[in-house]
Amino acid sequence: MTQPLVVFTPSGKRGRFPKGTPILQCARELGVDIDSVCGGRAICGRCQITVAEGSFSKHGITSAAASLGPVTATETRHRDKKGLQPGRRLSCQATLEADVLIDVPPESQVHKQVVRKRAEVREIQLDPVLRLHYVEVAEPDMHDARGDFERLKEALRDQWGLTGLTIDLPTLRALQKKLRRGDWTLTAVVHDKKRIIATRPGFADKAYGIAVDVGSTTIAAHLCDLQTGAVLASSGMMNPQIRFGEDLMSRVSYVMMHPGGDKEMTDTVRGTLNALFSQLAAEAMIDPNDIFELVFVGNPVMHHLLLGIDPTELGGAPFALATDSSMDLYATEIGITSINDSARTYILPCIAGHVGADTSGVLLSEGPHLQDEMMLVVDVGTNAEIVLGNRHRLLACSSPTGPAFEGAQLSSGQRAAPGAIERVRIDKTTLEPRFTVIGTDYWSNEEGFAHATRRTGVTGICGSGIIEAVGEMFLAGIISQDGVIDGNLAAQSPRIVPEGRTWTYVLHDAGEGEPRIAITQNDIRAIQLAKAALYAGCRLLMDRLGVETVDRIMLAGAFGSHIDPTYALLLGLVPDCAPARISSAGNAAGTGARIALLNTQARLEIESLVRRIEKIETAIEPKFQDHFVAAMAIPHKTDPFPELAKAVALPTPKRPTAEQTSRRRRRA
Amino acid sequence: MTQPLVVFTPSGKRGRFPKGTPILQCARELGVDIDSVCGGRAICGRCQITVAEGSFSKHGITSAAASLGPVTATETRHRDKKGLQPGRRLSCQATLEADVLIDVPPESQVHKQVVRKRAEVREIQLDPVLRLHYVEVAEPDMHDARGDFERLKEALRDQWGLTGLTIDLPTLRALQKKLRRGDWTLTAVVHDKKRIIATRPGFADKAYGIAVDVGSTTIAAHLCDLQTGAVLASSGMMNPQIRFGEDLMSRVSYVMMHPGGDKEMTDTVRGTLNALFSQLAAEAMIDPNDIFELVFVGNPVMHHLLLGIDPTELGGAPFALATDSSMDLYATEIGITSINDSARTYILPCIAGHVGADTSGVLLSEGPHLQDEMMLVVDVGTNAEIVLGNRHRLLACSSPTGPAFEGAQLSSGQRAAPGAIERVRIDKTTLEPRFTVIGTDYWSNEEGFAHATRRTGVTGICGSGIIEAVGEMFLAGIISQDGVIDGNLAAQSPRIVPEGRTWTYVLHDAGEGEPRIAITQNDIRAIQLAKAALYAGCRLLMDRLGVETVDRIMLAGAFGSHIDPTYALLLGLVPDCAPARISSAGNAAGTGARIALLNTQARLEIESLVRRIEKIETAIEPKFQDHFVAAMAIPHKTDPFPELAKAVALPTPKRPTAEQTSRRRRRA
Repeated sequence: MTQPLVVFTPSGKRGRFPKGTPILQCARELGVDIDSVCGGRAICGRCQITVAEGSFSKHGITSAAASLGPVTATETRHRDKKGLQPGRRLSCQATLEADVLIDVPPESQVHKQVVRKRAEVREIQLDPVLRLHYVEVAEPDMHDARGDFERLKEALRDQWGLTGLTIDLPTLRALQKKLRRGDWTLTAVVHDKKRIIATRPGFADKAYGIAVDVGSTTIAAHLCDLQTGAVLASSGMMNPQIRFGEDLMSRVSYVMMHPGGDKEMTDTVRGTLNALFSQLAAEAMIDPNDIFELVFVGNPVMHHLLLGIDPTELGGAPFALATDSSMDLYATEIGITSINDSARTYILPCIAGHVGADTSGVLLSEGPHLQDEMMLVVDVGTNAEIVLGNRHRLLACSSPTGPAFEGAQLSSGQRAAPGAIERVRIDKTTLEPRFTVIGTDYWSNEEGFAHATRRTGVTGICGSGIIEAVGEMFLAGIISQDGVIDGNLAAQSPRIVPEGRTWTYVLHDAGEGEPRIAITQNDIRAIQLAKAALYAGCRLLMDRLGVETVDRIMLAGAFGSHIDPTYALLLGLVPDCAPARISSAGNAAGTGARIALLNTQARLEIESLVRRIEKIETAIEPKFQDHFVAAMAIPHKTDPFPELAKAVALPTPKRPTAEQTSRRRRRA
Repeated sequence: MTQPLVVFTPSGKRGRFPKGTPILQCARELGVDIDSVCGGRAICGRCQITVAEGSFSKHGITSAAASLGPVTATETRHRDKKGLQPGRRLSCQATLEADVLIDVPPESQVHKQVVRKRAEVREIQLDPVLRLHYVEVAEPDMHDARGDFERLKEALRDQWGLTGLTIDLPTLRALQKKLRRGDWTLTAVVHDKKRIIATRPGFADKAYGIAVDVGSTTIAAHLCDLQTGAVLASSGMMNPQIRFGEDLMSRVSYVMMHPGGDKEMTDTVRGTLNALFSQLAAEAMIDPNDIFELVFVGNPVMHHLLLGIDPTELGGAPFALATDSSMDLYATEIGITSINDSARTYILPCIAGHVGADTSGVLLSEGPHLQDEMMLVVDVGTNAEIVLGNRHRLLACSSPTGPAFEGAQLSSGQRAAPGAIERVRIDKTTLEPRFTVIGTDYWSNEEGFAHATRRTGVTGICGSGIIEAVGEMFLAGIISQDGVIDGNLAAQSPRIVPEGRTWTYVLHDAGEGEPRIAITQNDIRAIQLAKAALYAGCRLLMDRLGVETVDRIMLAGAFGSHIDPTYALLLGLVPDCAPARISSAGNAAGTGARIALLNTQARLEIESLVRRIEKIETAIEPKFQDHFVAAMAIPHKTDPFPELAKAVALPTPKRPTAEQTSRRRRRA
């Protein structure tokens, strides 16, 4: 007699099995992806399936319900206790009785699709390093001299195919009591199929992880369910190291000037991380003891300080990293005590002295190494970290942009925070500005703006605001191509005011205690220096790779998320590219950390990628200086920015300066 | 032109090399074992060789000196600074110039012969898990973005062939400063060819380890030089857990009665270990920071308490171990803080609930699994741990002897300590005893005894003393085969005195404040119970293995070291065997720990051996009870002890008791 046929969707896998075979077993034998923590004992409820409508049997119509064995008492108990949607069966209980088409819903698949971001490049499937395995362990008896741990290993081998497992000492210490408390059933928390890092008496199905981006300014963290891939809570805190120095180099200087300063900064960031993790657990209403895994990204100085490594070497040439390998540690080794004691932590590799694990995260998120397009990835902070390439070759460098793009060291500059100007338009005739501030969508010339900003006020201008302001000033003819504010316009507009021997454009002057917000000649110089450095870094990599144009530009980081690509292009921050091909990657570093948290293969991917990236040191490249000087001016009609020119009506040059002349000469 | 020939002794390896090749290089290429820490840079001085007398060249006599290149300036400097015996050359400096016979002295060999003990079975070569490697590391520069750790790894790969190394985080933290302090030279302390656990700036050649036997009564430790295998200092301390209970089971009871009692005992033993290690380092005048490795043996309860595992499960059936695997940990994980912070510790595997890592040490030391002879290894303590077998098969069990052999729970019993009676002879005619005490070789009837014992006095009788006393009482006819003291003899000797309804033999009664030392009927019963248990365990293993006799008996442990094999046999502690084939293994467990400290392979050997040992649980073997009852009597002329009868004139039975009669019946 022919055995009944089972077909699974969406995989399409099919096979014949003896009547009475549990559907889960059929699935396993066919390699169909169905989840299970309890190993087929109707405890975890993860292996749910449905019988697809209709029947495909050529022997006639078979009732869908009759294709499977009757609902078992165990299933009914499970339904009553934990709930089960109508039509759902537990595949470990439902047996094959006649030809049937089984649908495996996405939530029952182990390798669920997670981190949608990279879908265009590649699917990221849930495949965490940390797994839960429920087992029934043989009781000891006088005929079996083996230890409890060895009997647990046997159970994990026989019931889950795991071999060669080791165990943490604290976990071993607790093992005997837990086995007895769980009446010889236990859930093992297994790291990387190698090590048992924790156990729970009986059945347990909670395991969480946190992906963390330790920025110089902000620490952002995402609490994820390692069994579903879902983000349960996200939170951020200021990096408390700010009190030791605003930017990276001032923190390194602090260490150089204050022996033991590295330890102070290490302790302070770890304290904040502990608080942040407690807060995330509270927010998601989970037990912090169920958090077993952390993944970190951060720039090299943050990376070293987190690990407790003195960052002094990163403060001067040759900028030697302590290590450019990934790190696999216990969370307690880096002072994390607010989650499970046995939790592990993975830290993505740094790439070079100025190109950190945050860039590794960006690469994992954006995947330039997985595509044919020539992609430029730019992460702007105090240093710009720049990666250029495609699946064939990848180059990275860091460029010293300084803090201007973060709003620092500008006359009215400030961090991106409520009250900061972030969008600017200037009327080309009247030279009158309008703007928006963070926290409202009203333009400053609209009714409702005053009300919307009544709490925050207008406090300053942030990085993306200054980019737009300078771009608009250029388009309105207030500044020339070489960035000089035209004092002659003071006659046309009261916004142009003298300031010593130069001129200033007043963006906002509410009086009455609110600060005057203006763009000074010095501010424009600072932006020019920053954007020239960024552009020069990009050009240098293009030279080294032998390309004249790029197919796509990805702006990563907080600054990159808020900047309007057209204005970035207008000022010449990045090489010419159709504005539609320039996009923001958001917190790509954090997304990369999340990918590494949820997918084991991603760790191997980034480790091998980092080894093959060609690292370019801008400081010793003579061409970098040339590019830098040449990029001081703002792109003009006569400049090689055809894509930009298509998008924006660029002014023609008014009066070539000496600088411009020398630049043209150098290009010729 | 033919290249010159070099022949090495004692290996006999030979080959031809171009003139000018350093001898060390010739040795490496031929696989000749010559030590080097500095990698051929004339720093460590370990690669010394001599030119053998005469010449073997068939082309005529070549002057020995002329066969090698002239002494280099580097060698002269080394000679002046560190000394070099006349005739010795550094093989990394001496070049091959003509045919030559090179002698490699034992101290220049890496795989020096160590632990002489097992020479009859197999050589133990020095091959420690921990090695020092001196390297010159490439300096970082702007063209090389790799981390300092990665450049160190490259150096270790290129200069020592080590690949895939990882590093401890605290070691990584210190790395950058050490590399710079050593001017880009460094000595790496590498564990198991896998992990860098410490570094020293520049050249360093000190690495020590300690082998520890944690006994219930005494903790014994040997500090060894990992580069030479030499024992630099040995020391012992009382196990401070004694205050929680004299024997193992009373310590387990303490835990059962006092929640947290396990932690108290764990803390106290670790405290003593820390003190002991400091003391050893001071004694050997070494820096405790150069101690990088510990190896432990101990019975299951000591093993669990050292690891911080609650031993409660070991206190009752089924006596489940937490683990029967070896442990590879950081010393800090078990609270050891008096040696290098990154030191590792290896703990030999336990075999069964009553057969501990101490027995694993004994096996490693005595090697029954390496020979054809049928060997019985007996380690007597509160439990006797018994192993029987040869290279083909090995069985182990534990037998509940109780504490009588340790002198406990006897009327005049005491631990083996100065003042304790350890040797006893009784005149067969007068029934007068003579004895020696620990601390002097004088017999009690000799002049000089009183003077020799003036400080200690005669305080009691220890385990080996009671064995001899009972044996001599039997030979003198004071006790019958079934152990009853013959009250009729009170008429012949004032030493036989009544004590309630039984009789007692007075061994020593000095009066004046010194205790009377006597053997009561109860004492003899306690010894009978203990020896019957031991014998029954041995017989049980012999039954299971199907052997009637054993070729060799090894008595391990403190008791085994002091007992006279003839008396052990006389009382029937062990099966019949020619007394000359019974020997003491001394502290074989400690020797086993030392072997595991000095030889990597030994660890794999014992791990695989423990897995294949057949573990017998005496408590559930009905035959054990039979053997036990049958073994209560003392062997007699009519008993199957032919080897014993050859050695000792055994008395003929006087009056078979009911017990004997039933025993004979059971045998028939």
